[in-house]
Amino acid sequence: MSAPLRVPAERLERFTRECLEAVGLQGDDAARVAALMADADVNGSDGHGIFRLPQYVERILNGGINVTPDIKLIRESPSACLVDGDNAMGHLVMSYAASVAVDKARTAGVAWVGARNSNHAGPAALYAKMPLAHDMIGLYIAVGNANHLPPWGGIDMLLSTNPIAVAVPAQEHPPIVLDMATTVAAYGKVKTAAQRGQTMPEGWMIDRQGQPLTDPTRADEGFLLPIGGAKGYGLALIFGLLAGTLNGAAFGKDVIDFNADSVTPTNTGQLIVAISIAAFADVATFKRGVDAAIDQMHGSERLPGFDSILVPGERSHAVRAEREALGVPVHAGLLSALQRLGSQLGVAPPG
Amino acid sequence: MSAPLRVPAERLERFTRECLEAVGLQGDDAARVAALMADADVNGSDGHGIFRLPQYVERILNGGINVTPDIKLIRESPSACLVDGDNAMGHLVMSYAASVAVDKARTAGVAWVGARNSNHAGPAALYAKMPLAHDMIGLYIAVGNANHLPPWGGIDMLLSTNPIAVAVPAQEHPPIVLDMATTVAAYGKVKTAAQRGQTMPEGWMIDRQGQPLTDPTRADEGFLLPIGGAKGYGLALIFGLLAGTLNGAAFGKDVIDFNADSVTPTNTGQLIVAISIAAFADVATFKRGVDAAIDQMHGSERLPGFDSILVPGERSHAVRAEREALGVPVHAGLLSALQRLGSQLGVAPPG
Repeated sequence: MSAPLRVPAERLERFTRECLEAVGLQGDDAARVAALMADADVNGSDGHGIFRLPQYVERILNGGINVTPDIKLIRESPSACLVDGDNAMGHLVMSYAASVAVDKARTAGVAWVGARNSNHAGPAALYAKMPLAHDMIGLYIAVGNANHLPPWGGIDMLLSTNPIAVAVPAQEHPPIVLDMATTVAAYGKVKTAAQRGQTMPEGWMIDRQGQPLTDPTRADEGFLLPIGGAKGYGLALIFGLLAGTLNGAAFGKDVIDFNADSVTPTNTGQLIVAISIAAFADVATFKRGVDAAIDQMHGSERLPGFDSILVPGERSHAVRAEREALGVPVHAGLLSALQRLGSQLGVAPPG
Repeated sequence: MSAPLRVPAERLERFTRECLEAVGLQGDDAARVAALMADADVNGSDGHGIFRLPQYVERILNGGINVTPDIKLIRESPSACLVDGDNAMGHLVMSYAASVAVDKARTAGVAWVGARNSNHAGPAALYAKMPLAHDMIGLYIAVGNANHLPPWGGIDMLLSTNPIAVAVPAQEHPPIVLDMATTVAAYGKVKTAAQRGQTMPEGWMIDRQGQPLTDPTRADEGFLLPIGGAKGYGLALIFGLLAGTLNGAAFGKDVIDFNADSVTPTNTGQLIVAISIAAFADVATFKRGVDAAIDQMHGSERLPGFDSILVPGERSHAVRAEREALGVPVHAGLLSALQRLGSQLGVAPPG
């Protein structure tokens, strides 16, 4: 495989914006989605950035996403709100939800904003990080957009990899940003392994007999394994109830597989919590405490075979620095898909 | 090993209350702690009920717990509060925190109450369940009281098994109650395996070379493994920052091993979140949605070797029914410890 082309994030962002405008998104909305998708790429979330653009465009052209949405609050308490996303791009729904959460948390202390009628919004970390600039901790949970996980002991795929992200600011160090699926491997990693002709390690998937499944081209004969067995199943279930059922959004059998169906509205559910540090602590004292925790983790004696100890988000910070300097790697397959998309929509290709 | 004696929960509760009064707790406080500890036993949390009484009494007699505490709010916003536990029994601190969270959530929608200067409070589920009676979802996170987990790739035990519990009410079914450590096995399970002369499965612990450790009598030569590898480490770290650092409570190197040290105040940190369902949804509609989710999980086709599919908390509900009918099993070793404690304090033994 030849080395991927490096494309500056700004060019990916401009291409994304122009494509989204070409299929009907308003200028501001297209710009906001494009900026978040480029941010996902710069942070190393390769399965959640421009990689998704052809799929988003297809869904928009099929009428599966509303390009002129009326995103609004339909329930509002001092610290709890429910957003109806009106089937908009998820990036728009959850940017709005995050801004409401931050506003509410400024006076209430903590605010929890759920969303229904949303859509895939890219990596969870994008939204968990939004409160950071306001000296707040951010927490985001989503119902994933395709079910790849059965209940523990079962084989019916009733659950998604329902992810959680939490972002916690530090003083000297970059923020800690945890962004994780409740399965051992996200489904995107299975797809990547298949593309690259790699074998999966045992523990990622099992087949319908409960045997390890390590050939990623046979992925549809099995399912993902949750972290910690029944515990990860429990987390995926609870996250689905909180981000889906509580918000009147899809969960369980009602989840639309957005990879297989690009028409039916997904009624995706997500939630974000903003936690104002000042409601609990002196902000600088807290951030220094986070620095101290990071230093303690870094300073731990190591197991054989480990060169360093990281905190969540640290790898992503390093990727970000590298990609801001050198550009985002775009593999040949993705590049041709983007070129085809550009010529279909009359938009100049990104590279 | 002979079959354990069955003791009615009421007798365990009375014994606990009388012992706690004998070492100086006020009547109401002793009654509240005893009721919660008995509830832990009835629910099957064998490592968190009366099993802990001798240790609690020892700590109280050593001055390590304040028996005449002034538990109070030291920060208060519409949806965020910080409780100073004044080094009280953790059960008292977190019962109070839960009642504040429920009160606040009634008007605010969601309320988050953190605690510092608390102590071990028994099983996380006890507190997560408190909001249920008010048609609220409860979420509880704690910094554990002994560090058995290193950062991922490290060998310094800087983290505890920092647990999370979430309780979600249903209509026809009992509530879903997830209560889990962020490690594959809780440390109590290791101790139980050692007591019973059993071998641990691979995956619970590794030694300082990174090799599987399966002999529980060698537990102090190794450490617990987090669920999902780096993911469980990330959760334990984040939970510690939220329940510990944010509240001005101990975290990382500052955590006191309360098994080894029964004198030094632990400054334990915990948090509880109460989420009013009515702030997001029609309560009955939501509960029926939870029922539907439970029915979907139960109805899944099963893997070979599984007789049934459970939702979190279901095993505990079954244990509860059995123990309410037949009494709580008290093994011979624990029974003699309780008898010694009773004669030390002048309290009639429970069995």
